[in-house]
Amino acid sequence: MAPEVARLGHVSLETPNLEESLSFFHDAVGLEIVESVDDTVFLRAVDEHDHHSLSLTEADAARIDHIGWQTAEPEDVRRFAEKFEQQGFDLTWIEEDEEPGQGEAIRFEIPNGHRFELYGTMEKPEPPAERRSKLKNRVYDPSGNNPVAPHRIDHVQIWDPDGLECAEWIRDELGFQVQEYYDEADGSRWGTFLSACEAKIDIAVVQSEHEDDLPALHHVAYAVDSPNDLFEAHNAMNEHGVPVDGIGQHGISRGEFMYARDPISGHRVEFNTGSYLTLDPHWEPIAWEAGDISDGDDHQWIGGIDSLERVHY
Amino acid sequence: MAPEVARLGHVSLETPNLEESLSFFHDAVGLEIVESVDDTVFLRAVDEHDHHSLSLTEADAARIDHIGWQTAEPEDVRRFAEKFEQQGFDLTWIEEDEEPGQGEAIRFEIPNGHRFELYGTMEKPEPPAERRSKLKNRVYDPSGNNPVAPHRIDHVQIWDPDGLECAEWIRDELGFQVQEYYDEADGSRWGTFLSACEAKIDIAVVQSEHEDDLPALHHVAYAVDSPNDLFEAHNAMNEHGVPVDGIGQHGISRGEFMYARDPISGHRVEFNTGSYLTLDPHWEPIAWEAGDISDGDDHQWIGGIDSLERVHY
Amino acid sequence: MAPEVARLGHVSLETPNLEESLSFFHDAVGLEIVESVDDTVFLRAVDEHDHHSLSLTEADAARIDHIGWQTAEPEDVRRFAEKFEQQGFDLTWIEEDEEPGQGEAIRFEIPNGHRFELYGTMEKPEPPAERRSKLKNRVYDPSGNNPVAPHRIDHVQIWDPDGLECAEWIRDELGFQVQEYYDEADGSRWGTFLSACEAKIDIAVVQSEHEDDLPALHHVAYAVDSPNDLFEAHNAMNEHGVPVDGIGQHGISRGEFMYARDPISGHRVEFNTGSYLTLDPHWEPIAWEAGDISDGDDHQWIGGIDSLERVHY
Amino acid sequence: MAPEVARLGHVSLETPNLEESLSFFHDAVGLEIVESVDDTVFLRAVDEHDHHSLSLTEADAARIDHIGWQTAEPEDVRRFAEKFEQQGFDLTWIEEDEEPGQGEAIRFEIPNGHRFELYGTMEKPEPPAERRSKLKNRVYDPSGNNPVAPHRIDHVQIWDPDGLECAEWIRDELGFQVQEYYDEADGSRWGTFLSACEAKIDIAVVQSEHEDDLPALHHVAYAVDSPNDLFEAHNAMNEHGVPVDGIGQHGISRGEFMYARDPISGHRVEFNTGSYLTLDPHWEPIAWEAGDISDGDDHQWIGGIDSLERVHY
Repeated sequence: MAPEVARLGHVSLETPNLEESLSFFHDAVGLEIVESVDDTVFLRAVDEHDHHSLSLTEADAARIDHIGWQTAEPEDVRRFAEKFEQQGFDLTWIEEDEEPGQGEAIRFEIPNGHRFELYGTMEKPEPPAERRSKLKNRVYDPSGNNPVAPHRIDHVQIWDPDGLECAEWIRDELGFQVQEYYDEADGSRWGTFLSACEAKIDIAVVQSEHEDDLPALHHVAYAVDSPNDLFEAHNAMNEHGVPVDGIGQHGISRGEFMYARDPISGHRVEFNTGSYLTLDPHWEPIAWEAGDISDGDDHQWIGGIDSLERVHY
Repeated sequence: MAPEVARLGHVSLETPNLEESLSFFHDAVGLEIVESVDDTVFLRAVDEHDHHSLSLTEADAARIDHIGWQTAEPEDVRRFAEKFEQQGFDLTWIEEDEEPGQGEAIRFEIPNGHRFELYGTMEKPEPPAERRSKLKNRVYDPSGNNPVAPHRIDHVQIWDPDGLECAEWIRDELGFQVQEYYDEADGSRWGTFLSACEAKIDIAVVQSEHEDDLPALHHVAYAVDSPNDLFEAHNAMNEHGVPVDGIGQHGISRGEFMYARDPISGHRVEFNTGSYLTLDPHWEPIAWEAGDISDGDDHQWIGGIDSLERVHY
Repeated sequence: MAPEVARLGHVSLETPNLEESLSFFHDAVGLEIVESVDDTVFLRAVDEHDHHSLSLTEADAARIDHIGWQTAEPEDVRRFAEKFEQQGFDLTWIEEDEEPGQGEAIRFEIPNGHRFELYGTMEKPEPPAERRSKLKNRVYDPSGNNPVAPHRIDHVQIWDPDGLECAEWIRDELGFQVQEYYDEADGSRWGTFLSACEAKIDIAVVQSEHEDDLPALHHVAYAVDSPNDLFEAHNAMNEHGVPVDGIGQHGISRGEFMYARDPISGHRVEFNTGSYLTLDPHWEPIAWEAGDISDGDDHQWIGGIDSLERVHY
Repeated sequence: MAPEVARLGHVSLETPNLEESLSFFHDAVGLEIVESVDDTVFLRAVDEHDHHSLSLTEADAARIDHIGWQTAEPEDVRRFAEKFEQQGFDLTWIEEDEEPGQGEAIRFEIPNGHRFELYGTMEKPEPPAERRSKLKNRVYDPSGNNPVAPHRIDHVQIWDPDGLECAEWIRDELGFQVQEYYDEADGSRWGTFLSACEAKIDIAVVQSEHEDDLPALHHVAYAVDSPNDLFEAHNAMNEHGVPVDGIGQHGISRGEFMYARDPISGHRVEFNTGSYLTLDPHWEPIAWEAGDISDGDDHQWIGGIDSLERVHY
């Protein structure tokens, strides 16, 4: 039986100024700081049991280091490793706890240049006692910190000069399910929206404008409860002086969104809500065509997105 | 003691196709039809006791006929009439029930060409029994009809080639209170936001782009409960194929908005929520200057408005 | 490899008066009618692609007929059948389309007397054109019908005189994952909350008060978007004159709820929102003990439930 | 012309332990501390410009000191004073700034034993720079502190052994408008809901159970945005270990509520949303009779209230 990816775990980002990036990701967005090791800070959302869903490392420039995926079983890491070594990939082994809290892992560039990490286990540290929720099935007390703090990592969106090929590799080699896709009038694939967990979209692979564009991360999305929260979060971003790139609703996924960017690094966070669950074992991908969503040329159902900036590896 | 205006009552609109306009105002927006007389249909929102807050008349073109204001006391109509006749205004007397449900009224053009109506009383017809709410302080059963139906008329926005003069006339002659105003970098007044009831903004007077622009209505706003409802209403407008002009939050008034337009007439409705009450008897107008609200050039705090189309008298 | 259950599919209910029950499930709750065959009406929620998530059959009394579960693969039906026949269960085969829209299925009583159905496939009929959403990933236009219509079936709650044994059978024989459980001070298991899909709770198994209580259904839950919607739905139930049993938030699952009951049959619907997703491949069940949730004796975190009525098979 | 009350200003409360009461009113509820003078702390909500809407004084027991009402004009204080002196009331003059931030005022017991204060002006101190909102029409940055912080004081509810007489005195002598009232089956008045500002309910006067009950304060209400916020606030109260007395919706006023109490003093705060505005200059009081609201015996439309505890003067 093939090894499996269970879910999106985390993104590892680099920033030219760790302190300023923390004032975005911690102070403005409301992620909790779990641990600091050397020049790296590990953060998670208030509803997350696992050690981190985002890491920030100070470096000479803003870059994305890797996207971390948790395998279904711990031994799937070695089984994926065997398979990809046979295919000639150059794997880097990450020892247990080399990335704090994380079990043994592999990192490698997928054919289209994105750097993925596959790991099997992650520690679940208790929050500090004064931040612990009184509810056993909640991690942090949601009333104790940031009014707009999102719950959990939801998905990532990457851009690729050959979006279709990239999406097909992820589907075929990692076993993801295609939830939706969008084809332009010329038949080219604009975007593919895939699921590792099969319950919701975990990654969006979008076609770059130019053939020689570098592979890039457009955003990491964190989940909030309702459109009310998107307005509250947008207000908070404005109050923090953080640049925002739109509020509205995607047609694809039906997800309602608000985008904000770390001013120093350009890393973008989507506050996200309202999408559907795919519990259907026989899900047929939603096939969009040009013209199906008519609100402007950025494929939105409500509102729009002002900026296409993205960050490279 | 000077006669007083108590509140915004209604807007009277003309449309080239009554049936199509009803499919916007009734079917899509969710206003209730109270009465039809000849070529005019009278509508109100689900929480309104009074006979109508909007009328639609079939005519050769889309126009605004008048904006109706209810006086504090019925006798204020005659007192306003005396005052404005002395000032040389050309008043038209509207007999009781000539506009259905309405007591004696006057209509006239204010100096800047907008047509106002002042009336003192309005009937409060019961809704049909099967639509009557079980709660005595609610009019229509909110679960019986349109999921996005707003509660009550909130305010109007008018455009004027001399916005400052127009706003000052409304303040000085009708006794409105200035809640907020916005001055451009060159010192010109972009907009003045006034209250008849002193609890909230009832009318926004905005400067036209060009000196020879005609006086116009930009929109009539109806109140909903929360930003959730704005997204729901936007979805409904998209499903109805109705054009929309943006979702977001104004800086001025802090009102959260969604704009939609009647396709046939161009009349625009704002779904509106989230503004504050001014209960302070010593309210000092909020004085905005250029640069105070930085999100683009349309003075929004969140999102933006795509279209400046408006309808003339 | 063992056959698997993929998700909760539907509940089949009996009512002494089909028409009156429809005025609850269709008119008040907002489920859509898909098909009527003889004395049975098949309904689904506005976001559901599959043929039905609830059926209502006129009978001499209110009863629950069966709870339908969809297997991961169509062939899992036969594999489950082989297994349970070997174990001596008395299986009833349901031919394709005998239950409209449904593929081949088996029905049987589990050891604790609950009647389960396992089926592999279900048709996905298009809604009537005038009710079809303009969004390809949405089924019905949400603005076209009932303001409080929930999205999709979420879970069922059953009561059993030996709740622990019943829950363990479901876990061990159907392969469900335990998400949470609650033990009373005397060590007895009050409730077990299990997942078929592993992303969320699909069934709650709760201990009956008395040893000789019959196996029963407490409620079927349908998902809405936010606590706002719970208040709207509660208002709608009051306006429809439908009995309600509480609004609040469970501690277990953190789900926010509003309960309403079909007046004629007593079948109860939970409007449900706010629970979390379990995407963690190494989920450890949340283990509650007496005293962990302090709000009264009905284990609620917010509010309470007034009535423990339930319906038997 | 008669002197007028413009609005509810503040409540002055006494507590046996100031520090513990602050951990309720500031830490849990989210009111901002404006100033501390001797044993008194002055607080306001995040949207309030005026110096305080609540004060807490350490004393030997929990008591209510007075309810403060702002007059329409500063000179109305002296005009009310003349009138009430003529009527034989025993007035206490409060010098300007004797109650910090407040202009000259009078305090006196109304016939039914409630202690009212009438003041004309109140300072509007700027918040600390780091807490100032970037929006000129907002006071505090709402993202900078407590996630559940309400916006502004909304109303008070008092209990009186002769509720009808008390309400009529407030209506006749202070010029309040009756918005709604509720009569029991025996014709006795259970409650009267009055407005000083005429836009909404400012005070509820409710009949005590027993003739010899002392005049009391049941709660002070602060406004939030939506039912979502009520659930969030309830969660926050639970996390803080603060006692709560119910979540739901009143039939009278249609206000949605959540009640919480300061554990040390018993002073109760209502988080409140969803009521309507009365902009109608000819408002006719809503007249409820026994049986109009059927949800239990506490006159609620949704949910209920667990505790009738109240605090005396």
